[in-house]
Amino acid sequence: MPQITFWFEFASTYSYLSAMRIQDAAKNAGIDIEWKPFLLGPIFKAQGWESSPFNLYRAKGFYMVRDIERIAASRGFPFRMPVPFPQNGVQAARLALVGIEQGWGPAFVHSVYWAQFAEGLNISERETLSKALTVAGANVEDAFAQAESAEIKSRLRSNTGEAQAKGIFGAPSFLTPDGELFWGDDRLESSILWVTGPRGPVLK
Amino acid sequence: MPQITFWFEFASTYSYLSAMRIQDAAKNAGIDIEWKPFLLGPIFKAQGWESSPFNLYRAKGFYMVRDIERIAASRGFPFRMPVPFPQNGVQAARLALVGIEQGWGPAFVHSVYWAQFAEGLNISERETLSKALTVAGANVEDAFAQAESAEIKSRLRSNTGEAQAKGIFGAPSFLTPDGELFWGDDRLESSILWVTGPRGPVLK
Repeated sequence: MPQITFWFEFASTYSYLSAMRIQDAAKNAGIDIEWKPFLLGPIFKAQGWESSPFNLYRAKGFYMVRDIERIAASRGFPFRMPVPFPQNGVQAARLALVGIEQGWGPAFVHSVYWAQFAEGLNISERETLSKALTVAGANVEDAFAQAESAEIKSRLRSNTGEAQAKGIFGAPSFLTPDGELFWGDDRLESSILWVTGPRGPVLK
Repeated sequence: MPQITFWFEFASTYSYLSAMRIQDAAKNAGIDIEWKPFLLGPIFKAQGWESSPFNLYRAKGFYMVRDIERIAASRGFPFRMPVPFPQNGVQAARLALVGIEQGWGPAFVHSVYWAQFAEGLNISERETLSKALTVAGANVEDAFAQAESAEIKSRLRSNTGEAQAKGIFGAPSFLTPDGELFWGDDRLESSILWVTGPRGPVLK
């Protein structure tokens, strides 16, 4: 089956838009999704940003909120900006890595995004994460324990390093097996078309 | 007729994508386009950038080139990065303002973008601009003379100030009469839908 890799950061507003629809989109297109949580913080830091560009550049941040409000409304789901923004998604990302191994990853990811951007909850809080784990069908205590393992911590660091090495600078990003990078929720369809064809003029 | 304002900067790669298709898109949708050249330089400078973000952030710049290559190819037209990038589009913008008054503005804008991003010419050179003026049906000498007038210079400064006041931080941007801002070539359709309806859930 054709595949794309879905690189997501839990604090990212546009990743929420994609997380809400990528499973249906993949099913409809007959493709597989590889789920890859990573952290944007170290990537932003490496280019001199100490926070989200939506905080650093006010006009851009103001626009982003309205842009997502409009898109979410047109797709029939809610959106609210979490407080604080950006949230700390490190533990959620580690849990997602556990879930991806155990099969409840996608449901957990969906549930964490929903908690943050639809319900306005704080995803760095254990209560929020416990609820998402329960919804996803995970063993809550076991998941938290595994998320603290050296192996999982190292995998998240390694995902982030891999993202940076592959030229990823924002989220969501979609990467095809032949190395084509697509950035932003509005490029999800293009990335799917890339692996399913027809592709139009060949660019290789 | 419904209307959107097309805010464009001649040095902007994504503005090229929109300039190539906005007239057809507007005609098909039955809407008017108000053409508004402005300068991104002062807006970038105000947020601490001394060049294009595509130069300042390498991964982003690298991605942008590939993204536009793919989009241009899928739409059946060429794309090449101009040297130098970003180009100085001040004189082109002043000439566009003259043309917008005299009726040859859209043809001139189209021609300048084509010269820069399809033919790889330098749009700060008089020869390139003269050719675009001729193609657009302008009186070349008269256009250059008027572009140097205090009134036109002041109008370009005022457009740039207006863009900034309206929260515009990049190009292309599309603004509706009721104040909805859409940023990026990939939001052209959304901006047209906003003024023509149906709009889906009302967001006011």
